[in-house]
Amino acid sequence: MGKVNREDSDSKDEKTEYSLVRVKGTWKRQLKKVKKDTCDCVPAAKIYDSITEKGITWTVVSPVVFTYKVTETQDLLDPVNDTLLLGHITDQQQLEDFKKSNKPIKRFVVVDQEVYKIYGPKITEYLEANNVLYKLLALPTTEENKSMEMVLKILEEVNNFCLDRRTEPIIAIGGGVCLDIVGLAASLYRRCTPYIRVPTTLLSYVDASMGAKTGVNFANCKNKLGAYIPPTAAFLDLSFIQTLPRRHISNGLAEMLKMALMKHRGLFELLEKHGRMLLDTKFQADNSPYGCNRLQAASQTTRIAITTMLEELAPNLWEDDLNRLVDFGHLISPALEMKVLPSLLHGEAVNIDMVYMVYVSKESGLLTEEEKQRIISCMVALELPVWHEECTMELIQRSLQDRLKHSGGLVRMPLPVGLGQADIFNNTSCEILHRAYKQWCNELSISTDGHCNP
Amino acid sequence: MGKVNREDSDSKDEKTEYSLVRVKGTWKRQLKKVKKDTCDCVPAAKIYDSITEKGITWTVVSPVVFTYKVTETQDLLDPVNDTLLLGHITDQQQLEDFKKSNKPIKRFVVVDQEVYKIYGPKITEYLEANNVLYKLLALPTTEENKSMEMVLKILEEVNNFCLDRRTEPIIAIGGGVCLDIVGLAASLYRRCTPYIRVPTTLLSYVDASMGAKTGVNFANCKNKLGAYIPPTAAFLDLSFIQTLPRRHISNGLAEMLKMALMKHRGLFELLEKHGRMLLDTKFQADNSPYGCNRLQAASQTTRIAITTMLEELAPNLWEDDLNRLVDFGHLISPALEMKVLPSLLHGEAVNIDMVYMVYVSKESGLLTEEEKQRIISCMVALELPVWHEECTMELIQRSLQDRLKHSGGLVRMPLPVGLGQADIFNNTSCEILHRAYKQWCNELSISTDGHCNP
Repeated sequence: MGKVNREDSDSKDEKTEYSLVRVKGTWKRQLKKVKKDTCDCVPAAKIYDSITEKGITWTVVSPVVFTYKVTETQDLLDPVNDTLLLGHITDQQQLEDFKKSNKPIKRFVVVDQEVYKIYGPKITEYLEANNVLYKLLALPTTEENKSMEMVLKILEEVNNFCLDRRTEPIIAIGGGVCLDIVGLAASLYRRCTPYIRVPTTLLSYVDASMGAKTGVNFANCKNKLGAYIPPTAAFLDLSFIQTLPRRHISNGLAEMLKMALMKHRGLFELLEKHGRMLLDTKFQADNSPYGCNRLQAASQTTRIAITTMLEELAPNLWEDDLNRLVDFGHLISPALEMKVLPSLLHGEAVNIDMVYMVYVSKESGLLTEEEKQRIISCMVALELPVWHEECTMELIQRSLQDRLKHSGGLVRMPLPVGLGQADIFNNTSCEILHRAYKQWCNELSISTDGHCNP
Repeated sequence: MGKVNREDSDSKDEKTEYSLVRVKGTWKRQLKKVKKDTCDCVPAAKIYDSITEKGITWTVVSPVVFTYKVTETQDLLDPVNDTLLLGHITDQQQLEDFKKSNKPIKRFVVVDQEVYKIYGPKITEYLEANNVLYKLLALPTTEENKSMEMVLKILEEVNNFCLDRRTEPIIAIGGGVCLDIVGLAASLYRRCTPYIRVPTTLLSYVDASMGAKTGVNFANCKNKLGAYIPPTAAFLDLSFIQTLPRRHISNGLAEMLKMALMKHRGLFELLEKHGRMLLDTKFQADNSPYGCNRLQAASQTTRIAITTMLEELAPNLWEDDLNRLVDFGHLISPALEMKVLPSLLHGEAVNIDMVYMVYVSKESGLLTEEEKQRIISCMVALELPVWHEECTMELIQRSLQDRLKHSGGLVRMPLPVGLGQADIFNNTSCEILHRAYKQWCNELSISTDGHCNP
C-alpha cells in the first residue's frame, strides 16, 4: 500500500483533484479550489502533555495516510497490459527506475478455485509472458472456508515464497470472499504487506474491491475477525463478469442500486432505463449495432457506482463515523442472510432489507407512493427479490436492537428521502416500523402458489 | 482506541501541546505556536481522477487519525484509582455521562501467568471493589507461546464474553510478549477493538507499551504476523518493577540507553550518574533519607525515555519512513537473539549490537575515544553485556545484507554522533565495519577464563 506516498502533483497524467465535503450526512466530491484561509487537512502528529495529581499523561495524535488506486481497465490479462504488475506504483520515478532495472518481477497470486477453472490458463500465460517469478495458489474461497485456517495456509505459502513486503504486492483474483481472506493474510504478514484486488464478480467489482475491510468468519459469525487495510490497488475489468450466472449479476446490481438510492438520482435513472439490458448482456458489448451504446451504459453505471462508493469510504476508511449511508440495506440483511443460508445471495438479502426500508420511508412521509413504486419496479426488473417470509417483524426488531448496541446507542437508520437522496434517522417510531411491515406484506408478500398478494 | 476523537481543546486540565518537527533525522517536540500562514497538518481525504487510454484511475487519499494516551500513575491497582477502568476516555462529556449512568463496567482482562501469581489477588480485589463485570484470563505468555494459536484462544474467550467493541477495551497486564499477543487479538476482533496496555517489566514500560506494534511469531520467525494498532491507552506504574529480577532491570535500561544515545544527552548523563542506583533500587523509593531523590531520578529517567520514544513514534506510527533512530541496536540483535535463544534477553542483545555500532561510530570519526569509553562504562555499570562470541563478523554482515533487502535497498544505519545525538548512515565502508569489529574484540572480548582481553 502506498501509504504516505501522496500522489505526485507534478506527474504528467491528466488528473483532477477533488476534496470531499459533507452535505447533509453524505459525502460529495468537490473540485478542489485552494483557499488560503482554510486548512483542507487533518492535524499532523502531535503530543500533548497533561500533569495532574495522579500522574502525567501524554496524548499522542498520529495520522496515518492511506493512498490507494482503483483502476477500471480492459484486457487486464492481455500480456501487453502491465496494469496487473505495475499499475499500483504511484511514483513515476520509481516506475521508471524499475523498468530500467530489468529486475524480474516476483508475485504471489491467490485465485479462487472456480475462477481458476475458467481463467487459470490465461493467468498463467500472462505471468509467463511477462517473465514473472510467481507462485499461483488456487483455493476454494467459499463462505464455508472463510476462516483463519485458510488465512494461515496462505501465510505459510507466502512465507516460503520469500517476497519483499515493501515492493511485491500479493495479488488476489476472485469474488468478495477471496479478496477478504487474502486481504487479511496480507495485512497480517510482517504487520502489513501490500495487496492487489482483482474482483471477478459484479458484487465485488462495485463493493468489496474498493474499501479497506478484510476479514474471515469466526465462531459462526460473519467477518468477526479482520482488519481495515485498503489494497494498494484494485484492478477492475468488466470482462470477468461475462462468465457469471445471471443471478449473480442481479446480486451485484443490488449494491449499485443501494448507492443510487442513497446518493445519485442519475444512477437510479440509468438502472431504471438500462438495468434489464445490463442484466441481459452481463455488462458486455457485443457485435450488434447497439454494442457501443451498451458498453457506454455499462461503464457509466459502474463508474458512478464506484465514485459514489469512494466518496463515502475515503473520509471514513476505518468506520469511526457511525453515520454511514453505505449501511443502507445492511441493518436487517445480515441476520436474514445467516438465517436462511445459503438460500439468499448477499445482494438479494440486502435488497429485501432495502425494500422494507423504502416502505418505512414511505410511511414516514419521506417518499411518495410514486417514488416507492418506481423503486420497486426497478428492483423487479433487476430480478431481485422484494420480499421474504423469513424477514419477520421479530427479526427486524431484533436486528435494530443489535444495531443500537453496536452503534453507540443510536439506530442510525439510513433512509431514502426522495430518489437519490438520503439521510440518517434515529427516531423512527415502532408504530411506523409496524405499519411499514404490514403494508409491505400486503403489497409484496408471495402466497404459497408463488404469486404476489393480492 | 479513540481514533479521530481528537483531544478536546477546551478541556479543563492543564495541558501543553507540542508539534513534532524533524531536525536532522530525529523528531523533536516543539511548543505549538499557531501561525496563520502555515498548515500544520496532513491532507484530508481526497479523490483524484485520471483518465488514460487504458482506462480510468481513481486515487484515494484517506487519512486515519489514531489518538492514544500514555499515563504514568501510582497505585494503579488501588481500588480508589479509576485510571485502569476509565483513564482511556478522552472526551470529558463522555466520562461524565458514563459516571452519571451508573452502568456497570465490563472488562476482559488478560494477565501473564507469572504476573498473575504475584498480582492476581490484587487485580481481582480491584475489579471486585469496583463492581466490574469481568473475565480474568491468566495465560503463559512466553516467547515460545507467542503464536496465532494463543491469539485465537483469547479471541474465543473474548467472543464468549460478549463485549461492546466500541466502549469496552480489552486490558492486557504483563511483559512485552503479553502486550503484543493481546494487542493483536484486539486488533483482529471485529476489525479493531480498543485495548489497554499495562506493562509489568521495565523493558515493556519504556518500549512495547507505547507504540503501535502488535504481533506473534510464525514459522520460526520473530513477530512475522501482526498489526500496527496502538492501544487506546497505556497505563504505567513503576511499582510493578519492584518484583522483577535484577537482570530484567538491566534489560529495560538497555532500551532507555538507546534513546539516550540517539536523542538525549541529559538522559545519558542521568543514566551515567544514577543508573547503578536505579538498578539497585529497582526504580523504587524507600524510607531512607534518599528515598525522595531516588524517586525523582526514577521518574525523570522514565519520563525522558517515554517522551523521546513518543517523539519518534508519533510521526511514523506505521513505519512508513524507513529512516528510524529507534532501530539503533536492532540491526544485528534480532539474528543474535534468535541464534543464542534463550541465553540473551532482548535488551542484552540490543546492547551488544549498540556497543559494536559505537565502535563503528568511533572508527568513522563520529565519536571520540573518550565518548566511546563513557558509553561503555555506563553499559558496564548497568550490568549489560558488552561483547558476545556469537556476534561474529559473518553474522554482522549477514544482518546488514538482510537489512538492505527490507529497507528499500539502503542500510539506514543509525549511529551516535557525539553523546545524545545521532544520524542515519548508508555508506559505511566494509573496511570500517571490519576495523570496528577488530577493535571491539581486542578491547572487550572475554577470554575463556571470563576476563576481558587484554
